[in-house]
Amino acid sequence: MTGEEVKELSRKYVLQSWSIQKTLNPVPIEKAEGIYMYDYNGKRYADMSAQLVNLNVGFGNQAIANAIKEQVDRYCYLAPSYAVEPRAELAKMLIDLLPDNFGKVFFTNAGADANENAIKIARMYTGKNKVFSRYRSYHGSSFGAGNLTGEPRRFPLEPGIPGFVKFFDPYIYREAIDFPSEEAATKFYLAKLEEQIKYEGADSIAAIVMETITGSNGVIIPPKGYMPGVRALCDKYNIIMICDEVMAGFGRTGKMFAFENFDIKPDLVSFAKGVNCGYVPLGGVAVSTKIAEYFDEHMLSCGLTYSGHPLACAAGVACLNYYKESNIIQHVYEVGKVLGELLEELKEKHPCVGDVRYIGLFSAIELVKDKETKEPLVEYGKDPNGVMGSIIGNLKEKGFMTYSHENMLFVNPALIITEEQLKEELVKMDEVLAVVDKEYI
Amino acid sequence: MTGEEVKELSRKYVLQSWSIQKTLNPVPIEKAEGIYMYDYNGKRYADMSAQLVNLNVGFGNQAIANAIKEQVDRYCYLAPSYAVEPRAELAKMLIDLLPDNFGKVFFTNAGADANENAIKIARMYTGKNKVFSRYRSYHGSSFGAGNLTGEPRRFPLEPGIPGFVKFFDPYIYREAIDFPSEEAATKFYLAKLEEQIKYEGADSIAAIVMETITGSNGVIIPPKGYMPGVRALCDKYNIIMICDEVMAGFGRTGKMFAFENFDIKPDLVSFAKGVNCGYVPLGGVAVSTKIAEYFDEHMLSCGLTYSGHPLACAAGVACLNYYKESNIIQHVYEVGKVLGELLEELKEKHPCVGDVRYIGLFSAIELVKDKETKEPLVEYGKDPNGVMGSIIGNLKEKGFMTYSHENMLFVNPALIITEEQLKEELVKMDEVLAVVDKEYI
Repeated sequence: MTGEEVKELSRKYVLQSWSIQKTLNPVPIEKAEGIYMYDYNGKRYADMSAQLVNLNVGFGNQAIANAIKEQVDRYCYLAPSYAVEPRAELAKMLIDLLPDNFGKVFFTNAGADANENAIKIARMYTGKNKVFSRYRSYHGSSFGAGNLTGEPRRFPLEPGIPGFVKFFDPYIYREAIDFPSEEAATKFYLAKLEEQIKYEGADSIAAIVMETITGSNGVIIPPKGYMPGVRALCDKYNIIMICDEVMAGFGRTGKMFAFENFDIKPDLVSFAKGVNCGYVPLGGVAVSTKIAEYFDEHMLSCGLTYSGHPLACAAGVACLNYYKESNIIQHVYEVGKVLGELLEELKEKHPCVGDVRYIGLFSAIELVKDKETKEPLVEYGKDPNGVMGSIIGNLKEKGFMTYSHENMLFVNPALIITEEQLKEELVKMDEVLAVVDKEYI
Repeated sequence: MTGEEVKELSRKYVLQSWSIQKTLNPVPIEKAEGIYMYDYNGKRYADMSAQLVNLNVGFGNQAIANAIKEQVDRYCYLAPSYAVEPRAELAKMLIDLLPDNFGKVFFTNAGADANENAIKIARMYTGKNKVFSRYRSYHGSSFGAGNLTGEPRRFPLEPGIPGFVKFFDPYIYREAIDFPSEEAATKFYLAKLEEQIKYEGADSIAAIVMETITGSNGVIIPPKGYMPGVRALCDKYNIIMICDEVMAGFGRTGKMFAFENFDIKPDLVSFAKGVNCGYVPLGGVAVSTKIAEYFDEHMLSCGLTYSGHPLACAAGVACLNYYKESNIIQHVYEVGKVLGELLEELKEKHPCVGDVRYIGLFSAIELVKDKETKEPLVEYGKDPNGVMGSIIGNLKEKGFMTYSHENMLFVNPALIITEEQLKEELVKMDEVLAVVDKEYI
């Protein structure tokens, strides 16, 4: 097919996520390698969001490709009830990577159903019903994961599921008060959370679910002491702590798991994306040994046809091995430092940049009309003139592909990006932000 | 690894679906080909359930294997926002296979999220909230799909989502009244459904969701006129008709889609399993042109990272082509006839067989203590002595792998099974049923 044909067929037959379909004009991609994609005219696009922050190793990773091909020659699929080598091996590798309190893994197809099952497991284990999660979070769009989600992508699922309670995240940049220090902020947020736990009734709360670092709602990094504080509240009130590491896990933040940045051990970890970079759909929930032991004696009422899909798990084994052999964590740490410096320069230089937040290769640029008042470039939930869309379009013109959310732009490239590639691409961001300075503020 | 090592790692690190973990003794599978699996000692097992009724083409299908390998060499993954050849091609192929009222496809990872999104789409399109589904149905175990599910696998998700309403399916064999004819049964069930629609308020009902033929709850085949009757009620009350074809679709019943057996056109079809046989996880929702057009102008608030996963879609394209080239529908029709005859013989011969239900290669054997009273071999929801487990164990001993549900055994082999293979395996079923006759009734 030609690029035009692929595009036309797509528009005619495929319903695309989160879109008004008639507005779609999808770029047809012919091939892809490393951090780059190429359309049918040979135009190169740098993938500066690692697709949907899943493609940590970029396109065409040979280790994963070969593992998939070898597994295809054995068997693609066997039901969850069989003992299967890549499934067992990947589960062991994950438990070895996780803190010493972890025991077993329940595999799913992706992040949403990882979170679905994490809640179910916490409810079964505790016998309690309520689930806390945060505003400005995204955990998936199926009914359970979507009810955890703390932003408008939840609304089509309402009226919601009884027992899903929201609390506010530590979004210090836009908090309605000024904190004298990071410590003061932490103290405030933890006090509010504890107050809410008491008012909801600690005895009815099964779990607190958090993206360890909020992802698509703006790379919101918790202040010092916050995560250990939540951990302590969970211990105090006998609540399961669930870290959603779907986006932040597997090296993205410069640690294998994002919670390692905060020296805590959750009880449950939901994961997906980076576990095998989405070469084959895969997700899962890792559970503590204590929780795993509960299900030695009690029915685990979770199940799905493709739980522990062998082809997906074989890709996972190869991917985790690749992370280790390529020393990806060290690389993210080094290139991440450069990213941080470049983002600070952009903030310094551009009136439209209100805030930059970054950790490892996980970052967001928050656009404002005024640095002092922090007035967002587009109002929350509203962008009638498509301002953010045109900024993304300008970047795309230059071959810089990423996505936006509200008034934020994301720079989350594949973790294999080199310093040179990063610098080359951020020049384009610099140019586009100059246009924003001039045209929109 | 040795088989013992694989089994030990599995038991140590993998949480298995729907199980009390300490009871697990999973068979380690070393290789698989066609309808057969082999453990590490070389013992052969016939897969008489097509794994979880997904592996329609059996193991090692070369057309699908090659398509996966070729796609791996292009790219494994591209985000839903790009135009991608295998995704667009598969969407077109599906629409071409479906009735002429269908327009577009939204892809998911599997059956549960296909149903999740089907409900969301129906609610968005109608602006109505309630969703009808049936007792004795299974639609998945995530919160939305699980709330549709009409049997105990739903219970861990309760208290349920507001607006999910259950009605009874036409389970004539165990109905509390005797119908003078199939027509009388149909009339009764449709009248009850209409009554319930009125009492719930037609104006608040978005959709009726049904497995076209109830699968894991017992291959319950609707009586003549029932499905057209439901279609007529949907038309009358402006309700979206959703056929869940996850298990019954793609040739299982001797038609490409199970609803073709009843000459109806649903508005939405959820699918998974047979679309690519689970070689790579894939599911989706096909929507009518009318519904698709609504989303030309309105936001489709559905989305997932792996929507239209290129590797999964490439496997789907190859799989649908294989169905056509191998003339699988005709084959199912022919071998299905033999299966029906063999099952009727078993029913005739064995006092423990109360009912056999079959269509194409989709069948269940319902076990009873007494053919006259129809007393089930094990009480609903209770099997304290593990009777069904030992029957499945006896079959497994003989190399016949399948699963049970309540008092039912399933015979749902890969659609490629030959008449000879089927006959060879059903001899084992005959032998095991003789033991049941002797020991349990």
